[in-house]
Amino acid sequence: MKILAIESSGLVAGVAVLTEDTCIAEYTVHYKKTHSQTLLPMLDEISRMVELDLKEIDAIAVCAGPGSFTGLRIGSATAKGLGQALGKPLIGVPTLEGLAYNLYGAAGLVCPLMDARRNQTYTGLYRFVKEKERYRLCEVVPQCAVPLEEIIEKVNAEEKEVVFLGDGVPVFQQQLRKLLRVPYSFAPASCNRQRAASIGSLAFVYAEEGRFCDPKEHRPEYLRLSQAERERNQRLAREALEREGEGV
Amino acid sequence: MKILAIESSGLVAGVAVLTEDTCIAEYTVHYKKTHSQTLLPMLDEISRMVELDLKEIDAIAVCAGPGSFTGLRIGSATAKGLGQALGKPLIGVPTLEGLAYNLYGAAGLVCPLMDARRNQTYTGLYRFVKEKERYRLCEVVPQCAVPLEEIIEKVNAEEKEVVFLGDGVPVFQQQLRKLLRVPYSFAPASCNRQRAASIGSLAFVYAEEGRFCDPKEHRPEYLRLSQAERERNQRLAREALEREGEGV
Repeated sequence: MKILAIESSGLVAGVAVLTEDTCIAEYTVHYKKTHSQTLLPMLDEISRMVELDLKEIDAIAVCAGPGSFTGLRIGSATAKGLGQALGKPLIGVPTLEGLAYNLYGAAGLVCPLMDARRNQTYTGLYRFVKEKERYRLCEVVPQCAVPLEEIIEKVNAEEKEVVFLGDGVPVFQQQLRKLLRVPYSFAPASCNRQRAASIGSLAFVYAEEGRFCDPKEHRPEYLRLSQAERERNQRLAREALEREGEGV
Repeated sequence: MKILAIESSGLVAGVAVLTEDTCIAEYTVHYKKTHSQTLLPMLDEISRMVELDLKEIDAIAVCAGPGSFTGLRIGSATAKGLGQALGKPLIGVPTLEGLAYNLYGAAGLVCPLMDARRNQTYTGLYRFVKEKERYRLCEVVPQCAVPLEEIIEKVNAEEKEVVFLGDGVPVFQQQLRKLLRVPYSFAPASCNRQRAASIGSLAFVYAEEGRFCDPKEHRPEYLRLSQAERERNQRLAREALEREGEGV
């Protein structure tokens, strides 16, 4: 089985092609360009380099959110378009699980932190449990959008060492140092941001569990409303109040 | 500080550009093309993508062996050429340490295995030790070229769980299952082969220790003689014997 993996939930744009045992190609860019400028040219580049005919792909793994709304939409649109055109299923991999999988086999708990703005973080808490010949990624706290204090309270309650990674680390580092009451560390540059290869590797695990989805049905999980939706809701609520006022 | 990292010790060709905290770009190809066809075009591609002027690079990290003789020579030649032209130092990262660093923070021992042919493996044994805010990679058995049985004997003697990775895993898997007397697992596709980003991340650690080297002085560590050298030595020994025979 061959999987094409796409990562676009944050600043990182990533594409990878993997079999169960081998990452045939991976291309990751963490730069100010938008994913609409990078993802497809990157896919084109690796396909050319490894002489890949996209028809050989058996499934398309895509980071399924949360994350940047625009990033997720570009990644999803790309995956859905390719899946539809090639007649291949999608495998949606929750962003925070993909991030945690960067630290395969980690001794401590793994806490990915993404800067969600508005004093929140997209986060979750995971640990690796040894099974026969491999580790399974297990959820301690499922992915969520919460204030930093809320996840750190749960981390402290576990009383275990923990590794942090993600674009939230530089943002929250000083707060983390103040709040943490367990031994902690930060992942290095080679594994502290989203990787398409991690999305792809985890997709093989989900494929074993039959977690495929029709390209038409795939929707990213935003975990909260977009700014436009929040503003619309506020406007509707305001208008309703005004109408009530007028009715009185 | 900005580091360009080059990996070419096995089938994988990899380039990456990193700062201490961020991998700006990484491109990895695991395909039948030779490194002379891939490395420089890959470097060119990522430089273009992230608008990198090579003059911004502060040092060049290169996988320093062991591994494929031809692969190492191409990687070294590339790094030495760039270092010389740009006036930047090199940081040689031992191949097996770079591989082990893929599994940053691993709970178990890490045993990278490369197929060295002639019934040998390039291997070593490592563990991650928690220090303030990060893990340090520590050597349990330094990298070496030995028969599989020899490293597995040392692994068993440690009586700890162990994760294997590298291109030796598919080659030795059946033997491993027979020989191992400790809990073991295999790394997944996303982190089971050489990565330039791991070479780069580890180079930042070595840079702190001042382990720079002049491009002119860098030599890969082959750990054993090349086939041509072995054949030459055998021929010389044979000729010496023949001369002795004639002298009698």
